[in-house]
Amino acid sequence: MSTHETQFKQSAHKLLSVPGPVEVTDEVLFANAHPSMSHVSPAFAPVFGNCLRMLRQLLYTDKGQPFVIAGSGTLGWDLVAANLIEHGEKALVLNTGYFGDAFADCLEVYGAKVTQLGAAKVGARPSLDELEAALKKDQFKLVTFTHVDTSTGVLSDAKAIAGTVRRVSPSTLVILDGVCSVASEEIRMDAWGIDCVVGASQKGISVPPGLSITALSTRALAVLDNRESPIAAYFASYRRWLPIMQSYESGTPAYFATPSVNLIYALEASLNSIVAGPTSLEDRFKLHREASARFRKEARELGFETVAVEDDACANGMTALYTPQDVPPPALIGALAKRDIVIAGGLHKDIKTKYIRFGHMGVSVVERPTDVAKVMDALRESLAEVAPKSS
Amino acid sequence: MSTHETQFKQSAHKLLSVPGPVEVTDEVLFANAHPSMSHVSPAFAPVFGNCLRMLRQLLYTDKGQPFVIAGSGTLGWDLVAANLIEHGEKALVLNTGYFGDAFADCLEVYGAKVTQLGAAKVGARPSLDELEAALKKDQFKLVTFTHVDTSTGVLSDAKAIAGTVRRVSPSTLVILDGVCSVASEEIRMDAWGIDCVVGASQKGISVPPGLSITALSTRALAVLDNRESPIAAYFASYRRWLPIMQSYESGTPAYFATPSVNLIYALEASLNSIVAGPTSLEDRFKLHREASARFRKEARELGFETVAVEDDACANGMTALYTPQDVPPPALIGALAKRDIVIAGGLHKDIKTKYIRFGHMGVSVVERPTDVAKVMDALRESLAEVAPKSS
Repeated sequence: MSTHETQFKQSAHKLLSVPGPVEVTDEVLFANAHPSMSHVSPAFAPVFGNCLRMLRQLLYTDKGQPFVIAGSGTLGWDLVAANLIEHGEKALVLNTGYFGDAFADCLEVYGAKVTQLGAAKVGARPSLDELEAALKKDQFKLVTFTHVDTSTGVLSDAKAIAGTVRRVSPSTLVILDGVCSVASEEIRMDAWGIDCVVGASQKGISVPPGLSITALSTRALAVLDNRESPIAAYFASYRRWLPIMQSYESGTPAYFATPSVNLIYALEASLNSIVAGPTSLEDRFKLHREASARFRKEARELGFETVAVEDDACANGMTALYTPQDVPPPALIGALAKRDIVIAGGLHKDIKTKYIRFGHMGVSVVERPTDVAKVMDALRESLAEVAPKSS
Repeated sequence: MSTHETQFKQSAHKLLSVPGPVEVTDEVLFANAHPSMSHVSPAFAPVFGNCLRMLRQLLYTDKGQPFVIAGSGTLGWDLVAANLIEHGEKALVLNTGYFGDAFADCLEVYGAKVTQLGAAKVGARPSLDELEAALKKDQFKLVTFTHVDTSTGVLSDAKAIAGTVRRVSPSTLVILDGVCSVASEEIRMDAWGIDCVVGASQKGISVPPGLSITALSTRALAVLDNRESPIAAYFASYRRWLPIMQSYESGTPAYFATPSVNLIYALEASLNSIVAGPTSLEDRFKLHREASARFRKEARELGFETVAVEDDACANGMTALYTPQDVPPPALIGALAKRDIVIAGGLHKDIKTKYIRFGHMGVSVVERPTDVAKVMDALRESLAEVAPKSS
């Protein structure tokens, strides 16, 4: 560690407790301030390679192929839609909130025929029986689900969904939208049979936004290989990126488009602590489950209700809460901001004005767990301040 | 400026003299290490807005619309190909190197019918007469040219090309690939009639890589508005990003996909010094022209030849040089690396093993002009070290 690095400390700032971007460590920010490096320099190649190897560990996959591409998490939907399904083929989208609608929209842009399987109400999930029935009715090229829908805080049962698809329709690809779940929820690509994980840097991975992080199973790679029609995108072509990832992983730089060099240094710094730090991956997920359960319990004691209907459908890296009657979200958000805590307002169109959203993932749960308690204390004070006094 | 900011200084490192990524200032790196911020926070919105306003100044456009999107420069080609031309329509690509071939490739992926107009030899440019003849032979939806082709260091005459297209085929859109020219070469969108500029953060703009920076003229916006077919991409849809840019510019955050918050802080820091710093824009371009002319002159005195055939076709932000006979590029690159100077090898397939490439743009020309002299001194020493001694 250089002298500069030990001296560097990020500026004092409001505590960010939204469901992404999340707080990051000083080490990660310092890595993001790495002096300029050539993307094809011998010094940078192993950094990129390390990221790919550590992502494989994070996703519990032996031969899956991670991809790190400059872009938002949303770019991952284009990667799926342009590469893993062809014009006119069918996709089943399990919908647990805003991000299901948007993923469906993206798939349709590329010519997929989309069936959406929604839930009975906002905060609920489509059942496994409904999934099975849908799979029996139609042959789908792929099924997508939002592992954690950031608009509702609903957690999907990834293992059970993948298991059902594998059993009922073995050739259908299972696509997990993990933008808000990678590194805060357990994802076992190989054991559960997940074919594609769509992720991003600014959530559980605890790096500033700007990286699309995805991974394909060997089965998905074979589907890519055996396409009949050309891939319907250039920058978002997995086929163009595959040799680049393989080359960097082998230690040799290669060029298709300039990668986000500094963000990749930051990614390496964060994955080092996620995958090879003092807290095991298993413990990391356990800490998220515990922090979330505690957060929910204390919030309920204050009179909040989770948007997620069932307790085991509550995400472990974030929570969406209906505010108590007569407590308008903006007042609460403002009262928290006065206490230097930043939380998020509503996003789902049907309930937008009725609820608030908190992030509790990554650094704020594992490396600096006092963050969550600080947020809860501030929420308690803020509620007392803004709630109408009963006379 | 906070205490942290005044203390922050990037680590000692090799001087990066490749044609991008380029050296960046401590202020830019420190901004890239900004503590985590929500992309929809009231504090971040004006930062994004400032970037858009300053990009408009940088590109000399009054009503053109800049777009800052997470991605590589390459994503800009998809933005053009998916939004500004429809399936089966014709594109004319002026080719001055590797990046012409690649842009043509991208256009074809989206269904454009591409005609390439190449030069007589590597390092030359298609003539304006040839352009005029091509425009008279066919009706093209758009013409693209690489303002500076990073593979050859060839500068295209943007003003003359745009003038010719406007005169001969007024309804054809003029697309300037400025990834390696924005902020190191003068680009007057409105006065010259440029309809789209495709850029990136890591070249003349002097910010780490990871931002696709593009701009559309009002004419291009009208073409976007009047498309007959749907836009063939989701993340790369200008129509989805347009209201987001407009909203951030008006000071109100909006959401389509999470922007690269930290890189946008870095972009603001760099544009502040480019557009509102002590050196005027006009002087900035003049400094680049002078640095480049001096660099070429000194290199020629050492026995190097520019890949660009004509002197007024030599880029002002980079130079590609054939090494003298019997001096293999790898030996020279290695000798420079020993002196802590990083330069680039060949990229153009026809001459790959015969030449080397230098960047001299942005910070290394304006804020820290000694960089270029340092590189030239090291080149002189390195040549003396590796050139075969005449007996």
